[in-house]
Amino acid sequence: MRPSGRAPDELRDIRFTRNYTKHAEGSVLVEFGDTKVICTASVDERIPRFLRGKGCGWVTAEYGMLPRSTGSRMGREAAQGRQGGRTMEIQRLIGRSLRAVMDREALGERTVTIDCDVIQADGGTRTASITGGFVALADAMQHLLDKRVIKKNPLHGKIASVSVGIYQGTPVLDLDYAEDSTAETDMNVVMNDGSAFIEVQGTAEGHAFRREEFDVMIDLAEGGIADLIRKQTEALEG
Amino acid sequence: MRPSGRAPDELRDIRFTRNYTKHAEGSVLVEFGDTKVICTASVDERIPRFLRGKGCGWVTAEYGMLPRSTGSRMGREAAQGRQGGRTMEIQRLIGRSLRAVMDREALGERTVTIDCDVIQADGGTRTASITGGFVALADAMQHLLDKRVIKKNPLHGKIASVSVGIYQGTPVLDLDYAEDSTAETDMNVVMNDGSAFIEVQGTAEGHAFRREEFDVMIDLAEGGIADLIRKQTEALEG
Amino acid sequence: MRPSGRAPDELRDIRFTRNYTKHAEGSVLVEFGDTKVICTASVDERIPRFLRGKGCGWVTAEYGMLPRSTGSRMGREAAQGRQGGRTMEIQRLIGRSLRAVMDREALGERTVTIDCDVIQADGGTRTASITGGFVALADAMQHLLDKRVIKKNPLHGKIASVSVGIYQGTPVLDLDYAEDSTAETDMNVVMNDGSAFIEVQGTAEGHAFRREEFDVMIDLAEGGIADLIRKQTEALEG
Amino acid sequence: MRPSGRAPDELRDIRFTRNYTKHAEGSVLVEFGDTKVICTASVDERIPRFLRGKGCGWVTAEYGMLPRSTGSRMGREAAQGRQGGRTMEIQRLIGRSLRAVMDREALGERTVTIDCDVIQADGGTRTASITGGFVALADAMQHLLDKRVIKKNPLHGKIASVSVGIYQGTPVLDLDYAEDSTAETDMNVVMNDGSAFIEVQGTAEGHAFRREEFDVMIDLAEGGIADLIRKQTEALEG
Amino acid sequence: MRPSGRAPDELRDIRFTRNYTKHAEGSVLVEFGDTKVICTASVDERIPRFLRGKGCGWVTAEYGMLPRSTGSRMGREAAQGRQGGRTMEIQRLIGRSLRAVMDREALGERTVTIDCDVIQADGGTRTASITGGFVALADAMQHLLDKRVIKKNPLHGKIASVSVGIYQGTPVLDLDYAEDSTAETDMNVVMNDGSAFIEVQGTAEGHAFRREEFDVMIDLAEGGIADLIRKQTEALEG
Amino acid sequence: MRPSGRAPDELRDIRFTRNYTKHAEGSVLVEFGDTKVICTASVDERIPRFLRGKGCGWVTAEYGMLPRSTGSRMGREAAQGRQGGRTMEIQRLIGRSLRAVMDREALGERTVTIDCDVIQADGGTRTASITGGFVALADAMQHLLDKRVIKKNPLHGKIASVSVGIYQGTPVLDLDYAEDSTAETDMNVVMNDGSAFIEVQGTAEGHAFRREEFDVMIDLAEGGIADLIRKQTEALEG
Repeated sequence: MRPSGRAPDELRDIRFTRNYTKHAEGSVLVEFGDTKVICTASVDERIPRFLRGKGCGWVTAEYGMLPRSTGSRMGREAAQGRQGGRTMEIQRLIGRSLRAVMDREALGERTVTIDCDVIQADGGTRTASITGGFVALADAMQHLLDKRVIKKNPLHGKIASVSVGIYQGTPVLDLDYAEDSTAETDMNVVMNDGSAFIEVQGTAEGHAFRREEFDVMIDLAEGGIADLIRKQTEALEG
Repeated sequence: MRPSGRAPDELRDIRFTRNYTKHAEGSVLVEFGDTKVICTASVDERIPRFLRGKGCGWVTAEYGMLPRSTGSRMGREAAQGRQGGRTMEIQRLIGRSLRAVMDREALGERTVTIDCDVIQADGGTRTASITGGFVALADAMQHLLDKRVIKKNPLHGKIASVSVGIYQGTPVLDLDYAEDSTAETDMNVVMNDGSAFIEVQGTAEGHAFRREEFDVMIDLAEGGIADLIRKQTEALEG
Repeated sequence: MRPSGRAPDELRDIRFTRNYTKHAEGSVLVEFGDTKVICTASVDERIPRFLRGKGCGWVTAEYGMLPRSTGSRMGREAAQGRQGGRTMEIQRLIGRSLRAVMDREALGERTVTIDCDVIQADGGTRTASITGGFVALADAMQHLLDKRVIKKNPLHGKIASVSVGIYQGTPVLDLDYAEDSTAETDMNVVMNDGSAFIEVQGTAEGHAFRREEFDVMIDLAEGGIADLIRKQTEALEG
Repeated sequence: MRPSGRAPDELRDIRFTRNYTKHAEGSVLVEFGDTKVICTASVDERIPRFLRGKGCGWVTAEYGMLPRSTGSRMGREAAQGRQGGRTMEIQRLIGRSLRAVMDREALGERTVTIDCDVIQADGGTRTASITGGFVALADAMQHLLDKRVIKKNPLHGKIASVSVGIYQGTPVLDLDYAEDSTAETDMNVVMNDGSAFIEVQGTAEGHAFRREEFDVMIDLAEGGIADLIRKQTEALEG
Repeated sequence: MRPSGRAPDELRDIRFTRNYTKHAEGSVLVEFGDTKVICTASVDERIPRFLRGKGCGWVTAEYGMLPRSTGSRMGREAAQGRQGGRTMEIQRLIGRSLRAVMDREALGERTVTIDCDVIQADGGTRTASITGGFVALADAMQHLLDKRVIKKNPLHGKIASVSVGIYQGTPVLDLDYAEDSTAETDMNVVMNDGSAFIEVQGTAEGHAFRREEFDVMIDLAEGGIADLIRKQTEALEG
Repeated sequence: MRPSGRAPDELRDIRFTRNYTKHAEGSVLVEFGDTKVICTASVDERIPRFLRGKGCGWVTAEYGMLPRSTGSRMGREAAQGRQGGRTMEIQRLIGRSLRAVMDREALGERTVTIDCDVIQADGGTRTASITGGFVALADAMQHLLDKRVIKKNPLHGKIASVSVGIYQGTPVLDLDYAEDSTAETDMNVVMNDGSAFIEVQGTAEGHAFRREEFDVMIDLAEGGIADLIRKQTEALEG
């Protein structure tokens, strides 16, 4: 039924390539099928003004798409002189999600910036960014521990994210572009390794969804995220 | 328990003042307690480039806060030269929500812009904007019908929006600022008059929420939104 | 003769609603007939860089129009990424005018920002902004006195502003939009309660005005402003 | 009494150098003493969107200061990414003033842009810009007549501008920087060759001026402008 | 002598990975040692306004660096709201260089945009961009030929680019970051397969170079570029 | 052969007018034939953040063209809200070139800004800017020596710049607009008074140039620059 031939509750091939680039404290190429995102974690000893002198750090995120990561070329945001609304929405979501598993006092007065740059898009770039961004963040925290910059790992949990939606009447997990562009309902879910929710963002432009559909989609997301967290853990131990 | 003394499932005083300003096709002052938003609907005979020649119209929204609608003065976005990420996120949400009950072919090749300008903020400005924006949009559609610009009302349903959250361990409806600023979980829900969901945006920065909590919050939202739609209907018939 | 039926030297209905919104140190809705402007005065303990360490404060103003305060919707300046020339001109005028009655040493090293946001426009928005802005400023100064932040009221006078022009050959006071849009000469005058001039800005695009016309317009403005200052005083004492 | 030794009603040395640069349809270096402004008039066969198909043209102006035209270097507006409020105010004034003597139907559907670039500032740059801009505009109109692009000179009058102010208690004409920076009252007047007023912009930041002072300043301006128009005429005939 | 142990006239390992991403008409990952750049060529049926109706096409380029492609994180240009001077300089250079081997009439009225996005920087990102950009452009032209959009290959030659400089007194080819950051003279050369020069950009900040040094550097560049063109050809034939 | 009748190795009339404007520490009008640029050098006691506390100063440059310095009016960069790529490229070149003869320690912790504003363009504005900018810089350094702000002249050499190109098959020196707009090869060279190279920027858009042509152009540039440095010296001694 699905264009890719996957079962409704089946993720795409998920891959994490750690140390993908050499300069960042954490650098991961995450692939959700044909969606490919470079996630880097950069540690900076400065913190935003509103946090100065409060003894805790910050985690923030920025998101971008290479102009030809998509089927037709998109204008480069740097050339247009502003980041669009979609970009801002996504990078705010990534940052909030990652802060949810971070003990910011243990991090100390420093900032970690997660850059998520999509080099190839095939649906689900924001969920791939969160899922891959967590791995980059974990690597950066290990780097600080190894260098004895911090004493205790500030991560108090794990998170991952996946999309769910209703495609031709069937609830499905981890939509690719072929599904995403025709599905009327689309939900992005972020959960932690304790099966609790960090973010739920469901949107129905055109077709409103009923409580039962909602519940099935949440069930699918729970299963998918548990799977993703397992794969993250393997990658980090690998 | 709640700072305002309200019951957990109790809305604030809700008021709609139609024809609040004189120029717009629809103009409503919406009040959710001390949160006050001017919502206007403006009809323009032009449509965005990507819709030209397709025989259907567009509904979009813009959101702003007066600099001193809040406890301490915020910088004016026009002076800063850009709309912030939060503003963009909110106005995209309002626009998507209102398009969900709009038959864009019946509207014809014209654009309706819903402007939501917060003159006093006390929590829940985005849910008040959607709820009041719908009333302004309904008035503007009636105006077009009265003027025989269109033959059939393009609205095929009603929508309203409310926030729910967990305040000191208790799920509560329609958070005011005193609750919102200390609640760890906050969810904005948009539903239609058929009890179906248009948008669900739940965020847990710090405290992740469990499936049971999620379900109770959704229940609260369903009740609150049914109530709000009743009040909208009364206002529109009044 | 006048579209509104007013006598040439007759003001529109003038109304001041103090404490219009709850957060600002001074908050006034000013109405000149159908022109309605929210004026708030916000006190901030910081001052601009060029005044640091000089022992005196600053008064500045910002001006905006809600997109649908006018007959056809205007683009939102925040969305366009810049304030237009007209906006800048007006807010500079408001700021200069209010500084003319302010003892900036008595204010101390703090900034008062007057925000003038037009919610409905029907001509004369800048004169209404100055006149209402003064009332908001007076309330904010009283607030600082009541809180014993300052010892002496920094206001050493009162100001108000009105427009005059030549409509169909007759000099008239306080032009509304119907007059303003066809009048060829338009003058905005700001005066204090000692009958002295703070600002005179007369513009003739198309029809130049003669010295005699000029003198009659100035006479009209003197009378109108004396009246406005009386009404301000009543409002502040009310 | 005056720093320059001039009599109260005495202009600075005024000089117009026509054909100052070679490309523009009109190009004038205007000098008011040490204030030097290059004014060019450029004719373009396009008109702004709001005038299309109406059979008449447009005159607009832009103003800039070279960064080191002043005593201490000012930031370049192009580098700052925006024109400041003062620049916008001045260029709007120049454009409005010049349109007041222009028969826009006789001009036909074309735009004349007057660029006023200050290469050395010593007070009165806006009045010099208007006065010199008129000469550049007159040359550009003659150029169009000579080339038979238009049949009739669209200029139906002449304009010039001068500043007046109160310096150490005495009303004076054409203030230089030494006077301007200490004078409390400052007025810019634009008049035509029929002794009628185009613009009057009087500002009293700190010291309000009385009706008698106002009248004397206007008298001074009338005399100065008559003189300036004589000098323009000589320059154009020379 | 060189930090990398290379001979003075030795290139780094050069690699071209064609079809690196799936959407673009041409997509190449180019590696000059640790410098890695994704070059894509996108064909668009629109052309810039200044070329409309002239029967020929356009080739342009954009350049960007991922924020953490470098040793310390750089601010994202999209977030800063403008492209810096260095970015503009580089993308103008890439565009000019590629246009030099393009028969723009054979291309027809379409635009090819070469996007060069640096994912890892280790010196020489602009020369790698030009060299890899050519391969992407060649693939895109072949794509148009295969699809019979054009009849004749618009490329009438090949180009490549390399840097040369003086490192510790010795002229060297293809500087990496360790050399580049301490070399006082740095030159980027673009040549075609006919041994002719397209661009020469030599800079001596601090140490000026003599004619003899200049000549030796040019000799080195000629050899290196011949080598690079050989490698491009192998990659395109592979 | 040349449109101007000059010999291939003949410069245009070169003129330097020192003290062209009165406020700057150095102010020079430089003319290369009909190309006229005002170059000012401004000394500021502040330095950029990245140099603080390092005991040395900075030299930077900004470049602009008056809108009607060219044959058809160019949009004003301040009005467009950004400096274009060409402007950035040129001002970076001017700054780098002048820093090459500056002992930044002898300058001390201060910044010199060279502003180059083109009032009339006829080809070669960047080479005129560098050549005139050097004279302005020399005057500013002498000013600091005269005022005993510095003890030793930080200039350890002289620089000048000229363009060379191939016009109708013949290598020529100092191209004017008539030549520049049709020449296919264009090179800008900056050299010092020790006959060494500071910058070489050669561009062939369309026609690539051979090594022999390259060598002849460099020979021409060497001769022209020696001549220009002689003229600078005369002007500075005059």
